[in-house]
Parts: sequence; C-alpha cells; structure tokens
Amino acid sequence: MEGITIRPASEQDCGRILALIRELAAYEHMEQDVTATEDILRASIFQRHMAGVFVAEADEQVIGYALYCHNFSTFLGRENLYLEDLYVTPAWRGHGIGTGLICRVARQAVEEGCQRLDWVCLDWNQPSRDFYEKLGAHAMPWWVGYRAEGEALQELAGISRERSEE
Amino acid sequence: MEGITIRPASEQDCGRILALIRELAAYEHMEQDVTATEDILRASIFQRHMAGVFVAEADEQVIGYALYCHNFSTFLGRENLYLEDLYVTPAWRGHGIGTGLICRVARQAVEEGCQRLDWVCLDWNQPSRDFYEKLGAHAMPWWVGYRAEGEALQELAGISRERSEE
Repeated sequence: MEGITIRPASEQDCGRILALIRELAAYEHMEQDVTATEDILRASIFQRHMAGVFVAEADEQVIGYALYCHNFSTFLGRENLYLEDLYVTPAWRGHGIGTGLICRVARQAVEEGCQRLDWVCLDWNQPSRDFYEKLGAHAMPWWVGYRAEGEALQELAGISRERSEE
Repeated sequence: MEGITIRPASEQDCGRILALIRELAAYEHMEQDVTATEDILRASIFQRHMAGVFVAEADEQVIGYALYCHNFSTFLGRENLYLEDLYVTPAWRGHGIGTGLICRVARQAVEEGCQRLDWVCLDWNQPSRDFYEKLGAHAMPWWVGYRAEGEALQELAGISRERSEE
C-alpha cells in the first residue's frame, strides 16, 4: 500500500465521503435512497458521534472509507463494533486498500475491548463474500433482517402512545 | 394489557434483565454464550449508555424486556434504532406484551427522529417472523450477516498494526 494512507476521517472529508457513499449506492442499485447531505453527515459523525470513519487517501484524494458504529450484545452484556460500509473507488481496487480499511476497524474494535466486529453483505455479492471469508470472518445466514420504516414505524409508535393514554 | 406496565428500565432491574437474557439464550440453544453479569450490564447500559431498555412489569416482577441501540445508515446520513432483543417470559405470553414492548421502541425511534427500526430474527423462528410481518415490518433476506471474533479479530487488528509500522 505504498503512497496510500489510512487515517481517521476529519470534518473536511465529509464531502468526499458523501461522494463515495453515492458511488456505493449506485453499485447496489440504490442511488435513489441516498438522502444524506454533507451537513447531515457532519452533525451525525462529528457532533453526535454516532459513527466513526477511517478513510484511505492517495494523491491527496480520499479514495475509500470504512464507517462503523457500535452495536450491543446482550449475551456479552456490552457493545461491539458494527461495520456499516466498506468501500474503495473502482480505480483504486486491487491494492489491498479494502483489507487495510477493514483491518483498521478491527484494530479499533480490539483497542476498545470489543470481542466482535459484525457487518452484513448482499447475498449476491460473491466477490465480497469470498473476500470476507478469506479474512477469517464467518457468515451467519440463519439471521434474517427485519425493518419497520415510514408509515409502518409511525403506526407502531402510535399504538404505544394510545396504550399509554388508556 | 391490564395490570401490566411498560417503562424504561432502571439500574435496579439489571438482575431481572440478566435472568431474562439467560431465558432467551436457552430458547435459542445458546446458553453457553452468555457471559454478561449484572455489573457488566449496569456499566454498559447505565454508565456508557450503549443501549436503552424498556421493561414490562406485572405483579411487581419484570416479565419481559426490549433492548435497543443505535445503528447508522450512510444513505440517510444518520442513526436509527436497532432492536437487539425482544423477550417475554413464557408464562406471560398471549397478553400483547411483546407488541407493547416493540411499539414502545418504535415510539422511541420516532421521538428521536429516526426513520427506521431494524432487527434480526432466526430464520427458523416462524412464529416471530409472522408476528413481525403482522406488525408491518418487512424482511430483508438478501442481507447475510458476517462476524469476525476471537482469534480472527485479533489477527485482522494485528495486520493493521504491522502496516502502520511499515
């Protein structure tokens, strides 16, 4: 990884990080779902500290990022790290930058005393799945993700308010 | 839900919450994986604020709980809620307590300005999957979970340390 630096992101990186988030969304055929702005990212990451980000830099340009947050294991009774995104812009692939980024997040996990680093991968993304398994991670295909959002979430919240007023 | 109260947990509930975590682990055939203690839970939840908990109480006994933490969506640019555990002790099922707890967490999500509430479910747990779908949640079976833990995590962290010393 000569000439490539991996470092914690700073507020000034938010514009480039957002551009890379959009690239990732396009790869996942989900461009229309990106509503983040630079200001929203800055507030969440650098003011509310809801996520941490490492960036990869080459030729004074941010070319990849890994964004993580904390999750919680009740069995362990404490937080672990959860890798939300790992992305390297296509022109810079094949230089071990993805490995460098995920290993940096793993080091953060160990430094924080976490016992696990978790993430998810799209089931059709075989190159990424192979990459993760080579790194020693194991798949947990017995878990199915669920989501309540939009009207469904508002309705559930409304049921709770009604019950508390009974 | 006459005679049943849903309220935020207090530090004094940690013993009962741990007992219910152990019950849940037994149901998932994972009892041996519970290493949490009351002190560990107390520190994570009430000192480091890494999770929030609502409990259901009847006859002055905590009989169920919902534990959530924050996750992060880079597409939205901000945090959402993630429901880690939802559990009601078997003797008290069929009273709508699970619904009451998940709706309380949904209300928390809405009050915090979150757009999503996410969670996972074991694929063989059809009663729970039916329950979630009735509530308006949708499954995301195209995501596969990955985990690096133990020696694999330490090795990844070690690769990062070696590279940074180059």
